[in-house]
Amino acid sequence: MSSLISRLVTPWMVVALAFGTATSVMAQSAPLFARDSDPRVMGWMQGFPPPPDKLITQPDSNYFSFPKLRWSVCHLREFLPTAEISRGTGAPAPLDYLPHAAFADMAREIDALTFKPMNADKAMTWEESLFANYTDGVLIIHKGRVVYERYFGCLKEDGKHAIMSMTKSITGLLAQTLVSEGVLDDRLRVRDVIPEIGDSAFASATVRQVMDMTTGVKYSEDYADPNADIWLYSRAASPLPKPEGYRGPDGYWAYLQQVKPEGRHGDAFHYKTIDSDMLGWVISRVTGKSVTEFASERLWRPMGAEQAAYQTVDGKGVPFAGGGVTAGLRDLGRLGLLMLNGGEINGKRLFPPGVVEKIRAGGDPSKFKGFPTIKNGSYTSQWWVFHNEHGAFAARGVHGQTIYVDPKAQMVLVRLASFPRAQNAFIDPTSLPAYQAVAKHLMGKD
Amino acid sequence: MSSLISRLVTPWMVVALAFGTATSVMAQSAPLFARDSDPRVMGWMQGFPPPPDKLITQPDSNYFSFPKLRWSVCHLREFLPTAEISRGTGAPAPLDYLPHAAFADMAREIDALTFKPMNADKAMTWEESLFANYTDGVLIIHKGRVVYERYFGCLKEDGKHAIMSMTKSITGLLAQTLVSEGVLDDRLRVRDVIPEIGDSAFASATVRQVMDMTTGVKYSEDYADPNADIWLYSRAASPLPKPEGYRGPDGYWAYLQQVKPEGRHGDAFHYKTIDSDMLGWVISRVTGKSVTEFASERLWRPMGAEQAAYQTVDGKGVPFAGGGVTAGLRDLGRLGLLMLNGGEINGKRLFPPGVVEKIRAGGDPSKFKGFPTIKNGSYTSQWWVFHNEHGAFAARGVHGQTIYVDPKAQMVLVRLASFPRAQNAFIDPTSLPAYQAVAKHLMGKD
Repeated sequence: MSSLISRLVTPWMVVALAFGTATSVMAQSAPLFARDSDPRVMGWMQGFPPPPDKLITQPDSNYFSFPKLRWSVCHLREFLPTAEISRGTGAPAPLDYLPHAAFADMAREIDALTFKPMNADKAMTWEESLFANYTDGVLIIHKGRVVYERYFGCLKEDGKHAIMSMTKSITGLLAQTLVSEGVLDDRLRVRDVIPEIGDSAFASATVRQVMDMTTGVKYSEDYADPNADIWLYSRAASPLPKPEGYRGPDGYWAYLQQVKPEGRHGDAFHYKTIDSDMLGWVISRVTGKSVTEFASERLWRPMGAEQAAYQTVDGKGVPFAGGGVTAGLRDLGRLGLLMLNGGEINGKRLFPPGVVEKIRAGGDPSKFKGFPTIKNGSYTSQWWVFHNEHGAFAARGVHGQTIYVDPKAQMVLVRLASFPRAQNAFIDPTSLPAYQAVAKHLMGKD
Repeated sequence: MSSLISRLVTPWMVVALAFGTATSVMAQSAPLFARDSDPRVMGWMQGFPPPPDKLITQPDSNYFSFPKLRWSVCHLREFLPTAEISRGTGAPAPLDYLPHAAFADMAREIDALTFKPMNADKAMTWEESLFANYTDGVLIIHKGRVVYERYFGCLKEDGKHAIMSMTKSITGLLAQTLVSEGVLDDRLRVRDVIPEIGDSAFASATVRQVMDMTTGVKYSEDYADPNADIWLYSRAASPLPKPEGYRGPDGYWAYLQQVKPEGRHGDAFHYKTIDSDMLGWVISRVTGKSVTEFASERLWRPMGAEQAAYQTVDGKGVPFAGGGVTAGLRDLGRLGLLMLNGGEINGKRLFPPGVVEKIRAGGDPSKFKGFPTIKNGSYTSQWWVFHNEHGAFAARGVHGQTIYVDPKAQMVLVRLASFPRAQNAFIDPTSLPAYQAVAKHLMGKD
């Protein structure tokens, strides 16, 4: 971080930006390796109290920069106000597993699988890739049974991990459900759903353009520019009291009401977190529920989640629909199963088959540019679609979060991570080919 | 609140003080009745966004004063950083209930029970008492079966409610467990457990004196005095960045290190929240775990809780052992069952029989003064003991929280509330005689 920026940026802002965006602030020197930066090795927050140099506190330190990040991804609620995505009070629906001996055999097989990272000459094993990716947790489900599960760093099976922009895919799934059920018309303009959007650039965008991030709205994430919109958004979103004399918008929704136009709606895909928060507002207006409450009602409760999830909120209690969710690994596996099986889990249908059909069909690839590791992809209803031979699609979040669904291999792969850099472009080269190697291996078992 | 105080007090402080103490700041005019102040009737936080005058926000409003309090007691995590008291990931242990028809009959019987409030001539029905007490939830368990359960205001069966100083009783139960198991010697001085307590007045107190709140430590809660210790404690505990130029202690534990003496250790019971936080530190030092983690391990997981609970934390991640817990009504019922049955629940023993024996025996009544509604009581291991014919004892928290255990009637009664005033002295007159009437009624059924 340049010294200019560091003077301007509070830790709260750094979190907000890391949450919402494809780029993040980090030390520019070579980061520690995964094993060396393991929070238990670093000694973060160990002891009562921890030694002063091992403390990670919200007011005083940049808690969301590497290597502190590796601890903080499992502890966001200890820094920030949050709302619960309740699982209800009943018994969770257990996940099926391979029998123990077969599970251990499969673990050995998968660990030893080799693949060639993108743009590399040298092969890497699956297990090596877990460390290359600073993996905190990985779960692989094949034909409805868990075949692989490992935890590292700060994550345990009964813990939770920030899912960053995978939050967008939950928001998008909820919106697509409303569209497929005929409750929300995605051809409506935003101003027809939320009149008080006023003369914001969002007013004239259709709900579908918001869902697919093809709006023409001004929102810059250039961290070198102290006037970049990301800083204004972060200040608006911070749940801390606003500084003396602050005149900007207060909260996500007040920010959305003053967004300026840039380009034309529908012309191109631009990855902008404000679209997801706009969509969250649309969902709440249509359902009369916060996205947190609606995610509980439509997903967490009926899918038999084993842990409540949670979502950060702004100073007015509005959940961060673009990046605020923290959840357990296995519950994200349940969400992946639901997507793989077109809306069914444990014999229950949670949303119409058209929801996943629509998402799998993808957005318009001709509007999709600038993601070198997903060359022929598209983005629709807040999901990434690879348009590959397996029909794969994914939820993705900065620092290496993914729910990767491979319909042809009948595979769901969830990976949670704390990669030093935010952009998945740095992580995909040792991830996407690895997922494909696992898919191929599992298909060979069929 | 006087205008002087209101200038000095931030909303964060008001919460901290309401949490930890027997007195709170409130409007001095006659408050609204329970039905009129129901948060759904008031319209707090309804709509997306709510109208400006119905918003309850952390930075801008006094969210923990009546009547906003009636909403906020169910939503603390949306204002404050918190740590989870995990229930684990398995199936909860169901509570036994009376069969439905018998349950409804019992509801009619209990609702119609009459009793005479303390210092009153006119009798009141049980059901009237629920409104007089601004009840949010009440659960009555008799001989191991739920016989009565109702929800009001902000609370639902799958929601959670701040338990205020009942947190102390969880802290005390954990400490007494360590003592009874021989892990913690309650005759040790605090300085022998935590050398860095330095020359704090706590240094020379025994662990038992801390557990029973008979320490001689200076800690004033006079809200009219801007230099009262409660304000210093609240500033230390706030997870917000400290104001420019702040030179005071940072966090609960830093505060405890600079407490001055007042009176002599062991002479008398003084209800001081700092004792509970001192005890939390002792527990963490002895166990190598935060009280949150230890409460999960020893209580929430093995008792088969149906919801995770949570606990507010200071700016260094230290849980508020004196008042920070929020939990579900039925899980507090499980905790009460555990106390009623001497440490057993669902056929499992969670702590030695000596723990409840010690608590039921009570503290030294001759040292207990100043609680007119509990005339012959005592306080030990952070539990209130009534020394009445039924051997009743209780966890108690401001604004009307209680887990009331009546061994003779084999009854556990949990009541969560948002009474306008903090002090239980205002709530006991319509509560304690009501509990006794229910106990008598249930015994008549035997």
